[in-house]
Amino acid sequence: MSKSPSNPKGTRDFLPLELSKRNYIINILRKNFKNFGFSEIETPALEKSSTLLGKYGNEGDRLVFKILNSGDKVKKADISSLESGNLNSFVKSISEKGLKYDLTVPLARFVSQHQNEIIFPFKRFQIQNVWRADRPQHGRYQEFTQCDADVIGSNSIIQEIELIKLYDSVFHQLGFTDLVLKINHRGILRELAYHFGAGKSIIEFITALDKIDKIGVDKVLNEIKLIASDFSEKELRNLLSKKEFDLKYLKKIFSKNSDSFLAIDELDQILSYFSTNNLVNEIKFDLTLARGLNYYTGTIIEVSSKTNQRIGSIGGGGRYDDLTSTFNLKNMSGVGISFGLDRIYLLMEESNLFPDYLDKSFEFMVANFGINNLKFIAPYVDEIRNKNREVFVYPDNVKLTKQFSFAHKHNASTVIIFGDNEKKKGIVILKNMQTGDQLKCNINEFVEILINSN
Amino acid sequence: MSKSPSNPKGTRDFLPLELSKRNYIINILRKNFKNFGFSEIETPALEKSSTLLGKYGNEGDRLVFKILNSGDKVKKADISSLESGNLNSFVKSISEKGLKYDLTVPLARFVSQHQNEIIFPFKRFQIQNVWRADRPQHGRYQEFTQCDADVIGSNSIIQEIELIKLYDSVFHQLGFTDLVLKINHRGILRELAYHFGAGKSIIEFITALDKIDKIGVDKVLNEIKLIASDFSEKELRNLLSKKEFDLKYLKKIFSKNSDSFLAIDELDQILSYFSTNNLVNEIKFDLTLARGLNYYTGTIIEVSSKTNQRIGSIGGGGRYDDLTSTFNLKNMSGVGISFGLDRIYLLMEESNLFPDYLDKSFEFMVANFGINNLKFIAPYVDEIRNKNREVFVYPDNVKLTKQFSFAHKHNASTVIIFGDNEKKKGIVILKNMQTGDQLKCNINEFVEILINSN
Repeated sequence: MSKSPSNPKGTRDFLPLELSKRNYIINILRKNFKNFGFSEIETPALEKSSTLLGKYGNEGDRLVFKILNSGDKVKKADISSLESGNLNSFVKSISEKGLKYDLTVPLARFVSQHQNEIIFPFKRFQIQNVWRADRPQHGRYQEFTQCDADVIGSNSIIQEIELIKLYDSVFHQLGFTDLVLKINHRGILRELAYHFGAGKSIIEFITALDKIDKIGVDKVLNEIKLIASDFSEKELRNLLSKKEFDLKYLKKIFSKNSDSFLAIDELDQILSYFSTNNLVNEIKFDLTLARGLNYYTGTIIEVSSKTNQRIGSIGGGGRYDDLTSTFNLKNMSGVGISFGLDRIYLLMEESNLFPDYLDKSFEFMVANFGINNLKFIAPYVDEIRNKNREVFVYPDNVKLTKQFSFAHKHNASTVIIFGDNEKKKGIVILKNMQTGDQLKCNINEFVEILINSN
Repeated sequence: MSKSPSNPKGTRDFLPLELSKRNYIINILRKNFKNFGFSEIETPALEKSSTLLGKYGNEGDRLVFKILNSGDKVKKADISSLESGNLNSFVKSISEKGLKYDLTVPLARFVSQHQNEIIFPFKRFQIQNVWRADRPQHGRYQEFTQCDADVIGSNSIIQEIELIKLYDSVFHQLGFTDLVLKINHRGILRELAYHFGAGKSIIEFITALDKIDKIGVDKVLNEIKLIASDFSEKELRNLLSKKEFDLKYLKKIFSKNSDSFLAIDELDQILSYFSTNNLVNEIKFDLTLARGLNYYTGTIIEVSSKTNQRIGSIGGGGRYDDLTSTFNLKNMSGVGISFGLDRIYLLMEESNLFPDYLDKSFEFMVANFGINNLKFIAPYVDEIRNKNREVFVYPDNVKLTKQFSFAHKHNASTVIIFGDNEKKKGIVILKNMQTGDQLKCNINEFVEILINSN
């Protein structure tokens, strides 16, 4: 036994204050997901290796936490693979399950498995932990919470519009008014690649573009130069640095290709929808938005702060046409968004957006003057709790200063004092922990006074 | 890739209806925990092997899910241990972490690790998943949710009293009024063992007693006979089958020993507290209540239904004096209770205690007559959602019968109809999905009518 026990590196214990702030965010997320007609599901932490592996590339496969087979099953360890350095094969011989790496692959598995129990279009949200065997470092964890909302089985852009409204509604309720929702379309990026003669290297083109915030326009242009056969640096630089963008201009320069025109029309419809139905935060087309993930095929979107750019994007998503086909369910168009809980938390801390009441461990404390006094006012305590208010009953009959100090450390609003003196007089004293003021109340009136003054 | 993807045996996918019922229970638990002054914490799913192993006995160690070390670290596999059949040593060479097996050992680790950040007495609750590599079978899962509330650092029986009230409050709010909270004290069981000459086999004595519901009094007496040197079968049978028990009687027959007298006095104080402050459910002393877990040292408690005994106990807990000492934090008395979520769920299903509204995926649906009509009533939809009510916007402009059928399958209350005709007239039609009635409203009044009639 280690002398100082600790949680594993890359994991976190959440103490009450931090957790109450996280849950404040999660509650607003969950309520909004529901108000927008999303239904919650949960999938297990454990998934079969056959579900997880081969979905995230080699690097992803390496980062999936593998569960050792139980009991005697480890005897089947393939030692020859280990000795010949074929670690994948060795791991496969002693592990059949892993911890889920994201919520997207389990969603695809879930939709395919339960397709006959689901009514499509299926709007689901999921707030659960995922695990990645990344090297632990500041702000990167091996165990963290993902918050996703997706619609499966509808290609209507009403979904994009609803998801954008959902983003705005959540972030507005969290207190954000200075965010920008950048939007783009993979169809436009594909056409852009063709336009510059990089049609055979679309993924590389998008990957290069995706780095623009990190490495800047010049380096991105250098990378694209290497894969583009019909490359005009001036034209692309011009396009990428344009601030106020006119989608009609793209129609002029793009070849008359139905895929790219559809993409432009979809974006146009979405943006014009919000030109009359204003959002609290800003939405704008951004040709440089690329999003790293391979599976996006249509609209892509990303949210970040205009004033605090250091933290990066706090949400992102997009449309994908082929997610469930790896699980043998074809033709299911999906679109989804994700909320970056840890980054939202950081941004809220830095912007001072958490309400003060989250600092309170509980609202009220009953001072302890012995079990008989507690017994006497117990029905009143029940009444306060039945009104959904928090009461901590101090367990020990110790000096009042010690009890006050405890209440103070917990940021309690009021201490309820009912000693022998008060009992004789049929009164209760309410001590306001902010001002120190003590208010004498008739015992039959104190609950109402307490509730109404807090 | 398997043709039909599936979740691993022993794990569960939760579809929306089942999850909303589970969350209904969890929300009532969480609200009550908070109202009783408990603070929520979370610990990671991953714990170091040194934290987990050696705490649950050999069988428990076997059932802890082990995580395979990542990447090249598996090269350190100790093949000679594997070949010599020393599986524990082999496993140790390739695994340093496991999945948490319960919430109790992680709590002890947490309290010891964070003792300087915690204010004692520390009232914490925790609602998180745990994992056990048990053979999957009906009603037994490898991944399940535990719901625990504990107080660390106070030996006042006010805690027991508060926990009993907490049980009663939660179960009452869930709709239960026919439960019995059985209470006993390990001090009494220890003295009972001494009384019958089994003082050297206290664990075996308690283990035998614990089986009384499963194997009956006769077989329990047979087992005790083997370990008790001063055994009167008639006397023990009498004690175990007494219905209405008088604690004073135990004082008479027990030797004048401070440990057992303290135990009797504690139980007496708790029971007499509730003789005037009535619970909704029943509390009673039960000499046959033993509780399996080794770490209990004081009061023990268990909750079950009086009318539906097949499901067994739906909650249990007790006092332990030594939980954190394995993590080098001494003299921390603790007392806690646990809620059996899966069994509570089953019992609520069988007793029909879930409210009907949980069947609704969402309350209201906006029928789709094209993007322009949706755009027009969007501000009204925002208004409904801002009042915290659920609205699903149907994504496609398809036949109305298909849209109604979708709303019907989701148990929506009302469909909001705003087609071109309605737009011209400045009205909205509200279709009640239960009665089929259609109500025409002025567009500026429909939100209020909708909200007030549902």
